[in-house]
Amino acid sequence: MAMFDLAQAIDVLRRTPDTLRALLLGIPGELERGTEGPDTFSPFDNIGHLIDGEETDWMPRARIILAKGANRRFEPYDRFRHRARNRGRTLESLLDEFARLRGENLRVLESWKLTDTQLDLQGEHPQQGPVTLRQLLAAWVVHDLGHIAQIARVMAKQYRSDVGSWLPFLPVLTDHEKPRS
Amino acid sequence: MAMFDLAQAIDVLRRTPDTLRALLLGIPGELERGTEGPDTFSPFDNIGHLIDGEETDWMPRARIILAKGANRRFEPYDRFRHRARNRGRTLESLLDEFARLRGENLRVLESWKLTDTQLDLQGEHPQQGPVTLRQLLAAWVVHDLGHIAQIARVMAKQYRSDVGSWLPFLPVLTDHEKPRS
Repeated sequence: MAMFDLAQAIDVLRRTPDTLRALLLGIPGELERGTEGPDTFSPFDNIGHLIDGEETDWMPRARIILAKGANRRFEPYDRFRHRARNRGRTLESLLDEFARLRGENLRVLESWKLTDTQLDLQGEHPQQGPVTLRQLLAAWVVHDLGHIAQIARVMAKQYRSDVGSWLPFLPVLTDHEKPRS
Repeated sequence: MAMFDLAQAIDVLRRTPDTLRALLLGIPGELERGTEGPDTFSPFDNIGHLIDGEETDWMPRARIILAKGANRRFEPYDRFRHRARNRGRTLESLLDEFARLRGENLRVLESWKLTDTQLDLQGEHPQQGPVTLRQLLAAWVVHDLGHIAQIARVMAKQYRSDVGSWLPFLPVLTDHEKPRS
C-alpha cells in the first residue's frame, strides 16, 4: 500500500528544520556532542549529515534523473563529508544553514510541478541499481524521519546511567546497541 | 558517567510539546493514525500516552516520593488509558492539551526547587522496587525522547513500500519489527 504523494512528502520535508530547532537549539554540550559509541553520529553530526544531503544527495540526484541524459548514474555519497566541513561550527549555525538549504531545495522541487510520468523516470544508484524519482523522494522523507529518531535516541542514551531500574522498560536506551548502517 | 542535572532535564522536557507540534500538526490522516502493526501506537496514540504520563505517572509519583509517607508505593500505570479517553478527539486538541499539562507540571516541578537530598528520596515502583526521585525524573526525560523517536519511526514506516531498493539502507524502516515493550 503506497503512501507517497508529492505534496504530502514536501509537507513532511518542510517540517524537519523546525522540529530539529525545537529539539536541539540551545541544548547543553554533552547532549549536542554525545554519541552512541565510536563512529556513530552525535546530534551535531546528524545536522551536518542532513546538510550534506541537501548539498550533495537528494536534489543533485533528482536533477540527474530529470536531465534524462545517457549517463544517469549518481555520484557516490560521502557519509563523512560533514566532519571536515563543519569543524569549528556551532550547532546553531548548522541548524540555520540546514533550514535555509532545505527551504531553497523545496522551493525548487515545488517549482518543477512534477508529473507522475516524471516521478517514474529512473536514475542509477551506484549500489542499488535503477531507482525511480518517486523512490528517491520517498527515501528523502524516510531519511529525515530516521535522523529525527536517531537524534532523539542519541540524546536519550546520554541518560542511560541515570535511570536505574527503568533501563529495561525504556527500549530507546537499548535500540541500536550495534550501529546499523 | 551521570548526565542528570535538574535544570537541564526541565529544559529537555520543555522542548517536547513544540517539537511534536512542528512534526505533527496538520499531517495527513494516514500518517497521524498509521501504526507499526497490531497493538502498537500511532502518532495520535503517542500523544495520548504522553498526556496519560502527565496526568497519572511522573508528577503523581514524584508527589508520593516527596510526601515521605509510610506507603510510597506508586499506583500501577495504565498504558491503554488514552484509548477510551481520547475517542473522538483531534490530534490538534491533544497536542494543545499536552502542551498545557506539560507547562503546568514543569511550573510545579520548578517551584519545588528540589535539593540533592530530595532527589535521593525513594519511592517504590510496583514492578521495579525502590527507585529515587532523580531516577524518576531521568526516566521522564528518556521516555519523552523515546516517544519522539517512536513517532518519527512510525511515520517513516508508512513509506516502507515506496522506497524500493533503499529499504535496507534506511534502518528506521526495519527497527522494532517486533514491538519492544
